[in-house]
Amino acid sequence: MQTDVYLIGTGQTRFGEWWGKSLKNLMGEAVDAAMEGAPCSALDIDFIVVANMLGETVSGQAHLGALASSFLPHRPPAIRVEAACASGSVALHTACALLESGRAETVLVVGAEKMTDAPTDAITTALMGAADGELDAPSGLTFPGIFGLIAERYMHEFGLTREQLNIVSSIHHRNGVSNPFAQFRQEIPAESIGASPLVASPLRLLDCSPVSDGAAACILSTKFPGKFRIAASQMSTDTVSITERPSITSFSATKDAVVRAFEEAGAEQNDIAHLELHDCFSIAALLALEDLGFAEPGRGIQWYEEGGSMTVNGSGGLKACGHPVAATGVKQLIDIKKQLTASGQRWGMTHNFGGAGATCAIHILEHAYA
Amino acid sequence: MQTDVYLIGTGQTRFGEWWGKSLKNLMGEAVDAAMEGAPCSALDIDFIVVANMLGETVSGQAHLGALASSFLPHRPPAIRVEAACASGSVALHTACALLESGRAETVLVVGAEKMTDAPTDAITTALMGAADGELDAPSGLTFPGIFGLIAERYMHEFGLTREQLNIVSSIHHRNGVSNPFAQFRQEIPAESIGASPLVASPLRLLDCSPVSDGAAACILSTKFPGKFRIAASQMSTDTVSITERPSITSFSATKDAVVRAFEEAGAEQNDIAHLELHDCFSIAALLALEDLGFAEPGRGIQWYEEGGSMTVNGSGGLKACGHPVAATGVKQLIDIKKQLTASGQRWGMTHNFGGAGATCAIHILEHAYA
Repeated sequence: MQTDVYLIGTGQTRFGEWWGKSLKNLMGEAVDAAMEGAPCSALDIDFIVVANMLGETVSGQAHLGALASSFLPHRPPAIRVEAACASGSVALHTACALLESGRAETVLVVGAEKMTDAPTDAITTALMGAADGELDAPSGLTFPGIFGLIAERYMHEFGLTREQLNIVSSIHHRNGVSNPFAQFRQEIPAESIGASPLVASPLRLLDCSPVSDGAAACILSTKFPGKFRIAASQMSTDTVSITERPSITSFSATKDAVVRAFEEAGAEQNDIAHLELHDCFSIAALLALEDLGFAEPGRGIQWYEEGGSMTVNGSGGLKACGHPVAATGVKQLIDIKKQLTASGQRWGMTHNFGGAGATCAIHILEHAYA
Repeated sequence: MQTDVYLIGTGQTRFGEWWGKSLKNLMGEAVDAAMEGAPCSALDIDFIVVANMLGETVSGQAHLGALASSFLPHRPPAIRVEAACASGSVALHTACALLESGRAETVLVVGAEKMTDAPTDAITTALMGAADGELDAPSGLTFPGIFGLIAERYMHEFGLTREQLNIVSSIHHRNGVSNPFAQFRQEIPAESIGASPLVASPLRLLDCSPVSDGAAACILSTKFPGKFRIAASQMSTDTVSITERPSITSFSATKDAVVRAFEEAGAEQNDIAHLELHDCFSIAALLALEDLGFAEPGRGIQWYEEGGSMTVNGSGGLKACGHPVAATGVKQLIDIKKQLTASGQRWGMTHNFGGAGATCAIHILEHAYA
């Protein structure tokens, strides 16, 4: 970062099924929670970036920037950004640019999604908007299908077994037990993952992150210093269609973004104490660990089998926390802040992608007093 | 602007009914056209901002940033932004911040919309996503209805007659005749405007901008200097719901943004040689002229009755050019560049809003050699 950008306020709703709350209600709750602990007043917010993917299709509501702006008495300028499931972290990236440009000194980022009002088939179709409508969708593929293909190919290439894959979701669920904001807070034994209903072979129900409602908000500032600094904000892009990739067991956007993120932060893999990665499906967690450089290709599972000094999805990840699409990237940063506060460590990383890794955004948070 | 941002490339599709072209096709055409005349190569583009509102609802396609990125061989990072009908200019604003932050040196902005694939009732419903789903939509209001109320109230307050209002669309259509990219290129006499079918009293069919497909692209750069500089990029926000406004015959977001835009550019109303304003409905043109400070409240019609040294919607505006929602703000900047080139004048302005003026973005373009 060319200018020091601090994370000075955080707040979120619990993720889950919030039938009685609208997208606006959820955003409002997260904003209130973020403002509550922040050292600035509402009037210090001079720009708002809202992340959202499904507002138009599920709630008939676009124009969420202006809608969120009405939460604050002076209604600062506001925009909405979208990059499918990476929308939240892409909003953080946009906020960083606004701050570094000097156009804003304190920016509110809100990621929000309302999904459970729509039936599963409608949500599955709407989520396919993250894929290429001309190259991927006509085949009948859905995202569980796409990641099923990825898992199948990964097992073929690297010999990963179904029993090994079971461990991933099981550990994420175990981590989620102590997170009061997680949608699911129960332990699920590895055997139960493999015994859950088949969704898209080899992926089963408990390999998949759930459909969720929720919102998360972060306040970033160059004006109010704090203990947490955004040390890197990088994003990268790959083909949207998986049909145009040389490989589907590695995401080049992740590999590209992480190199630039470490360069920007002046840190390296060994420095990261806490990682929140994008486990929309269990297999995606293994690809992420490998593409981020924490494991060799095909060896991501070792992190789950053997553990390590770095915590991975200590919050419970998308699997246990829930995945209200555009809220996820924002919520990951909140969790890293909590984990660094608890551990006293210096560096944490968030990894958030959209589609089958077509957009990847990575943030590194530095705990200044560590 | 803290850094000089130049407009170095422009291109668009003709706006209209493009049943044989997808959103991706339209974006591609506009990008090719913008690249063709630009002094940079495709590889110089280091960020893409796509503006789009209706991709998910009409085309089932989100994630348009990554999709547009695939047009370029190196697939630069890309995001999509949305602020209803102001999406295009809000994308330009976001691009300016990215450039001023130093994170990018050359940014491609693409505004694109595909509307004619959906039936009118579906488009009308989707466009209501720009209003407040909890406060405006339940009344059964549509945007023609909202602007019908505004026109009714304006006539009541200021004594504007139906005959006077007829002149607005008639002049925009006359201007559009010479624009090869306009959807409608025929003159329409003022009497025909007032004789067209009633849509939402007192507004008639020819008071309304049409449903359109189209795309427009601009390349902005801090690295490649050019003859055209973005002298100001400002945006402002008002309540989304018209039920929360003290007045509906004036838009405070426009008034606020224009003050800051003139301050940023170091210019004033008398300097502007060409104005492209947001005439989604004829009545909106009168509000805009007044809120921008070019006319006293209630006197906007005088610009159309008497003319002036400044050209207003020389392109034909939204009425004659068509209004593919998110393409409009980008296309307005292209038209101002053309007009400044032709006239040799120094300053031009674009005025683009979303909803009933809930988001307003204003750009001032300076012709350096004038």
